Amino acid sequence: MKALVLEKVRQLTLRDIHIEEYLGPDDVRIKIHTVGICGSDVHYYEHGAIGPFVVREPMVLGHEASGTVIEVGEGVKHLKVGDRVCMEPGIPNPNSRPTRLGMYNLDPAVRFWATPPVHGCLRETVVHPGMFVFKLPENVGFDEGALVEPLAVGLHAARKAQIKPGDLALVIGAGMIGLVTAMAAIAGGCGKVIITDIVQEKLDLASYFGMMSVNVTREDLNEIVSKVTNGWGTDIVFEASGSEDAVLKVFEPLCPGGRVVFIGMPTHPVPMDIVSAQVKEARIETIFRYAHVYPRALLLMESGRVNLKPLITDRYRFEESIEAFEYAANPRPSSVKIVIEL
Amino acid sequence: MKALVLEKVRQLTLRDIHIEEYLGPDDVRIKIHTVGICGSDVHYYEHGAIGPFVVREPMVLGHEASGTVIEVGEGVKHLKVGDRVCMEPGIPNPNSRPTRLGMYNLDPAVRFWATPPVHGCLRETVVHPGMFVFKLPENVGFDEGALVEPLAVGLHAARKAQIKPGDLALVIGAGMIGLVTAMAAIAGGCGKVIITDIVQEKLDLASYFGMMSVNVTREDLNEIVSKVTNGWGTDIVFEASGSEDAVLKVFEPLCPGGRVVFIGMPTHPVPMDIVSAQVKEARIETIFRYAHVYPRALLLMESGRVNLKPLITDRYRFEESIEAFEYAANPRPSSVKIVIEL
Amino acid sequence: MKALVLEKVRQLTLRDIHIEEYLGPDDVRIKIHTVGICGSDVHYYEHGAIGPFVVREPMVLGHEASGTVIEVGEGVKHLKVGDRVCMEPGIPNPNSRPTRLGMYNLDPAVRFWATPPVHGCLRETVVHPGMFVFKLPENVGFDEGALVEPLAVGLHAARKAQIKPGDLALVIGAGMIGLVTAMAAIAGGCGKVIITDIVQEKLDLASYFGMMSVNVTREDLNEIVSKVTNGWGTDIVFEASGSEDAVLKVFEPLCPGGRVVFIGMPTHPVPMDIVSAQVKEARIETIFRYAHVYPRALLLMESGRVNLKPLITDRYRFEESIEAFEYAANPRPSSVKIVIEL
Amino acid sequence: MKALVLEKVRQLTLRDIHIEEYLGPDDVRIKIHTVGICGSDVHYYEHGAIGPFVVREPMVLGHEASGTVIEVGEGVKHLKVGDRVCMEPGIPNPNSRPTRLGMYNLDPAVRFWATPPVHGCLRETVVHPGMFVFKLPENVGFDEGALVEPLAVGLHAARKAQIKPGDLALVIGAGMIGLVTAMAAIAGGCGKVIITDIVQEKLDLASYFGMMSVNVTREDLNEIVSKVTNGWGTDIVFEASGSEDAVLKVFEPLCPGGRVVFIGMPTHPVPMDIVSAQVKEARIETIFRYAHVYPRALLLMESGRVNLKPLITDRYRFEESIEAFEYAANPRPSSVKIVIEL
Repeated sequence: MKALVLEKVRQLTLRDIHIEEYLGPDDVRIKIHTVGICGSDVHYYEHGAIGPFVVREPMVLGHEASGTVIEVGEGVKHLKVGDRVCMEPGIPNPNSRPTRLGMYNLDPAVRFWATPPVHGCLRETVVHPGMFVFKLPENVGFDEGALVEPLAVGLHAARKAQIKPGDLALVIGAGMIGLVTAMAAIAGGCGKVIITDIVQEKLDLASYFGMMSVNVTREDLNEIVSKVTNGWGTDIVFEASGSEDAVLKVFEPLCPGGRVVFIGMPTHPVPMDIVSAQVKEARIETIFRYAHVYPRALLLMESGRVNLKPLITDRYRFEESIEAFEYAANPRPSSVKIVIEL
Repeated sequence: MKALVLEKVRQLTLRDIHIEEYLGPDDVRIKIHTVGICGSDVHYYEHGAIGPFVVREPMVLGHEASGTVIEVGEGVKHLKVGDRVCMEPGIPNPNSRPTRLGMYNLDPAVRFWATPPVHGCLRETVVHPGMFVFKLPENVGFDEGALVEPLAVGLHAARKAQIKPGDLALVIGAGMIGLVTAMAAIAGGCGKVIITDIVQEKLDLASYFGMMSVNVTREDLNEIVSKVTNGWGTDIVFEASGSEDAVLKVFEPLCPGGRVVFIGMPTHPVPMDIVSAQVKEARIETIFRYAHVYPRALLLMESGRVNLKPLITDRYRFEESIEAFEYAANPRPSSVKIVIEL
Repeated sequence: MKALVLEKVRQLTLRDIHIEEYLGPDDVRIKIHTVGICGSDVHYYEHGAIGPFVVREPMVLGHEASGTVIEVGEGVKHLKVGDRVCMEPGIPNPNSRPTRLGMYNLDPAVRFWATPPVHGCLRETVVHPGMFVFKLPENVGFDEGALVEPLAVGLHAARKAQIKPGDLALVIGAGMIGLVTAMAAIAGGCGKVIITDIVQEKLDLASYFGMMSVNVTREDLNEIVSKVTNGWGTDIVFEASGSEDAVLKVFEPLCPGGRVVFIGMPTHPVPMDIVSAQVKEARIETIFRYAHVYPRALLLMESGRVNLKPLITDRYRFEESIEAFEYAANPRPSSVKIVIEL
Repeated sequence: MKALVLEKVRQLTLRDIHIEEYLGPDDVRIKIHTVGICGSDVHYYEHGAIGPFVVREPMVLGHEASGTVIEVGEGVKHLKVGDRVCMEPGIPNPNSRPTRLGMYNLDPAVRFWATPPVHGCLRETVVHPGMFVFKLPENVGFDEGALVEPLAVGLHAARKAQIKPGDLALVIGAGMIGLVTAMAAIAGGCGKVIITDIVQEKLDLASYFGMMSVNVTREDLNEIVSKVTNGWGTDIVFEASGSEDAVLKVFEPLCPGGRVVFIGMPTHPVPMDIVSAQVKEARIETIFRYAHVYPRALLLMESGRVNLKPLITDRYRFEESIEAFEYAANPRPSSVKIVIEL
C-alpha cells in the first residue's frame, strides 16, 4: 500500500510499503480517510528522534486518524463494515499492572503509532484492535474524527483537574493543545477560561470560542487575573506551553487551594518555585496522553458542546503529504491544525 | 413595611409588619425586587410545618430573592448602593465546626429565611450580611437572580457527583429542582443528560433544553438507558423526585462504579436495595441545600452556559401574592417556577 | 484428587473428583495447605443457593486458601516451586470494561471459586493464573495466608471510606468481616474504632484488639458515640451486620460530612432514612469483594500492623471437613474463623 | 512576665516583658509548661528573618507549646481551669475566604506565634482563643503535648497524600519533620515506610521506629526501592529535605500514578523534571502548616499509634533558654527535638 514514510531525518517519501497485517478475531481493518499532523510527527521529521525514541528504520508517520471499517474480526461486536470510525493510536499490554489499574497510558510496553519502531497511520489501511476503534456519531465528520486524538489530551487534562462546576481556569498557551484543553475545560464545567499566548492570531481564534484571551507580550496576566477574580486567583491553571518562564510563574495567578495541570513538556528540568506553591497548597497534576477518554470526547462532540471544526486551518491531499509536512515545519502564525485527506 | 405573612395554616395576609433590622458594619440593606415561590413555601402554607419546623407565630414567606442594595455597612467592600444583587437565604454561625470545615450548610444553628421562626423575604426590604449578598452580572436580570437559589441546589448536587467530562447522567424528576440539576449537570461537564418524569409538559421543557426526556408512564427507562449506553448504564443518577418507587429502582440504570445523588427528600424511610448498589459499588451522595456555590452559579449564568429564563412560567405582582400562592398550591402541569415581583 | 464436594443441599462428601486442569504459560499449580470456611460456603451447604447462584451440579466448596507452588508456567516470573502463597479466588475477564477501568471485581464474567458452577479450593491442588497468586512474606504463616481473603474485604472497605489520619470509625457487627474491617480501619489510619455486636464473646475479642466495644443489647450506642466525640459523631460508619435495624439507624451516630460503607448484604431491600443522611450530607459507599488489595494486605501483615492469628478460633483436618461444616452451621458464640488444614 | 526575647539577630535575652493580654469571652489563659524549639525559631535567632518576615522589634520566640489552663472565658465550654492542653500557634480570621473554605492555614491574615511581629510562647503565660486550645489525653504528657505542633505538619502531609491502606511510602530526610511525617504515614495507613538521610544517627532513630532507613551517602536509593517493590516504585514520596538534588530526582523512585508531597521548603526555585513526572502521571501535593489536624493528632497519640517521646533528645530549663538556642544552632548529629521546660 501507499504510505508517507520518514526514511530518515528530513527525508520523506510517499511510496509503496509492505506492512504485514493479520486480522485477528478481535481486530478490524480500516481504510484511512483523514489524518491530522501532530507536533510530534513534525519533530520526528525535523530531528529524527524524541527523547529516547529514535527513528532507525523507515517509519510511516501519523497517529491522529479517522476512517471507515472495511473488515471486522469475528469477535468484534460493536462495529460493522462501513462504520465511520476514529482510533486510539496506542495499544497497551492488557495484563500490565498500569493497564489493570485503569491507567493503560502509563504502560511502558504500549505500542503507539509513529513512535519508533511502530508505523503510523498515514497509509491506505490499518488493522487495529476493535477495543480501540470508536464509531463516529452521525453528526461528527471525518475531519473532527481525526481530531479526537488531540481533544482526548485536553479532556484528560480537564479530568485530572477535578473541575468543580463554575471553576475559573487559566490556560497558558493557545496552540492546538492549549485550545483543545480550554475547550475541554469549558465543556468539563468551567465557568470561564482565560487563555494566554504571545501570538495574536492564535488568541483571536480563542476569542472566537468565547475564551478571554490575554496576549502576554502586551498585557499583565497577574493583574488581569486579580481583577477578574477580585484578588482571589484562578481555580485551575493548565500549563500547555512547556515554556520555562511559564513554569516558573505558574503559581502566581493561582488561588489558595488551586490546581495546576502540567500538559506542556519542557525539554529539560526547569526551575519551579515550590514555596510559592506551598503557601497556596497548590495541587499539581501531570498528564501523559490519555486513557478511557475517547467515548467521552465523542459524546461531547455529538452533543455540540465541543466543536473542533474551526481548529482545522490547513488541508492537504494525500499526494501533497510531503508539502504538508514542509508547511507544518514552518507554518503561518494563524495555523492551528493541518490535516491530510487520503 | 408590607409583607406576605403566613398567619397560620392556609391563612395568608399581605399586610404591614414591623421587623426591627439594625444594619451592622458588615451588613447591607436590600430593596427586594423579585421572589421565587419554592415548594417549601407552599408546604408551610398548606401544612404549617415541615418536619420539626412548625410555624407557631406569623411568619413572612419566601427565600429565593433578588433586589437592589440601598444601604451598605462600613465594613462591606464588594457592594455599593444601587448594585443589583441576589442573596443566600441561610446565615450560619461562622465559628461552628461545620462552617469552619467548609460545610456551613450543615451548621445546625443556621438561620434560614422562611424557616420558622425566621422571617422570609417576601417584604419590601431586608438587612443581610454582605458576605451572603452577591452582585448580579450585567447580563443577568432580577428574574434569574431570584432563581440562583434553586440553581445552587442543582449545582451543589452536580459538584457532589464528581462529574468527569463526558459523563452520562440520568435525572429522575423534571420539576424545578430536577431541571436545574440537569442544567447544572450539563454545565458541569456531562456529555448527555436523560431526564424522566410522569408529566409530559415538564418533559417538553426538558427537551427544549436539549435533554433526552423519558416519560416513565409510557416508556421503559432501563431499556432506553441500556440502548443509549450499550448496556453499560449511566455514570450518574440524580434522584430529584423523592418518590419511594424511584429510590427502590435507583441503582438499576447505573453503571458499575457509578454515583447516585439523593436530592429529593422522601417523607419517611424508604426501601433501598443495598445489594444492587453493592454489585456495582455505587457511591451515593446526599445533599442539603448548598455551600460556596453562588459565585459559581453566577459565573455560569454570566457565560450563558446556564439559562434560567425559560423556567419562569408564571409571574405575579406583589399585590397578587395570595393569589400566587393559591395557584402554586394547585398549578397547571406545565408550571415550573412562579415568581412574584415587588 | 480428593475434594470436599457439595453434592446437593446439606449433602457433603469428601471424595475423589476429577478436575481437568491444564497449566497454561501464565498459570501456577498450587498444593492447597489451609482453607478458611466462609459464611457463603456454609450458606451453599445449608441452602444450595445464594441469590441467583444455584448449585445444580456437585461443586467443591472453599475459596479462602493458602498453599505451596508445585508447578510454574513458563511466563510466570514472580513465583517459583516451593513458594508459600495465597490466592485471589476470582478470575475476571482481562478485557472487560470494569477490569480495564481498574474494577475487576465488578466484571460480571468473573469466575469465583465455589460460586456455582465454579469449583472451589477444598481439594488437593488447583491451577490458578499467576497474576492472582501472591507470595506470603516469611513471617506470615499458612493460617494467616488463608485469611487474606476476608481481610481483603475489610481493607477494600477501609479504602473506600477514604480514611483521613485520625478518623474515628464505628463498625457495626463484630463477626469475622466486622473484625477484619475494624482491623483494616485501624491499620488504614483511624485513630479509634468503636465496634458493636449483640454477642459479648465477639466483643471480648474486639476489646483484645484494642477496639472500644459496645454491646447494643445493653448499652445506648448513640449516647456513647456522643460522649466520645463531644456530640460531633463518628467520621465513618462501617455497616457489617446486614441487619435491617442497623441500616435504618446507620446515620444517627455519623458526623456532618461523614461516610458510611455498606459491607453487610441485607437479604432484601431495607428502609433507609434518606433525609437523616441528607442533613449530614453523608457519603455512602458500597463494596463488592475487592480489587488490587492482596499486595496491600500482605504488606500490612508483614509489618505486623494487622495480626490475623487470634481470629482463628477453630481448626479441623481435611478428613474432618464434613464435621467442620456441621460445626460451622451451628458454631459457639465465640467462634470467629474456622480453618481446615489439608 | 519573664520571656525569651529575640532582641535582634543573634541576641537573645531572658527578661521581663510586658504583654497586654485581655481575656475575651472565647479565650483561655494558659500557664506554659513545655516549649519545643523549631528550626524556624533558630532561623530567626541566626538570621533575623525568614523570607518577607523580618524581626524589627524585640520578639518572644517559640510556637510549639503545652501548658495548663489557669483562666477560662465565659463562652468556652470544652475547657476548665487545671486542664492540661496544647495550642495551635496560628489564629486566622474566621471570616476570610480560605478559612470559610476549610483552609484556615492559607489565610494571609493569620497571626502565628513567633512570626514577626507576633510574640511567641516562650513566656510564662499566654491568652489564646479556646477554639485553638486542645485538652491533652490522660496518657499524653506535657513533653509530647509540645510536639503536637510538628506532628500536625506530618499528619497534614499524610492526609494530603491520600494514603490508601497498605501504600508504600518513601520519606526523604530524617530530621524532625521527616520523622514525624514517616510516623504519620505509618499511622495513616502505609504498610511500609522507607526513609533516607545522610546522617546515620538520624537513620538509627528511624530504624528504632520500624522504618526502613537508607543512607544515601552509601546506598543507591533507586536500586533499593526497585528491589523492595519489584520494579514498581513507591506509592508516595514525601520530600522533607528541601534539598535541590532531592527535588530533581524526586520522581525516580515513584510508581506510575504515584503521589509526591512537598513538605521541605527550598530557599529558591529549584529544577524539576516535569517530563519524568508526566510519564508517571505523578500527582504533586504541597503543604503549608496544617488545618483541623490537632484533634486527629491527639487521638492517634492517645491510642498509642504515634509515640513522640523518643524524638525528644535534648532538654533544657527555662533559665537555660539561651544555652538551648546556642546548642540548637549547632546541635549534635543525633539531636532531633530540643525542648525547654518552664
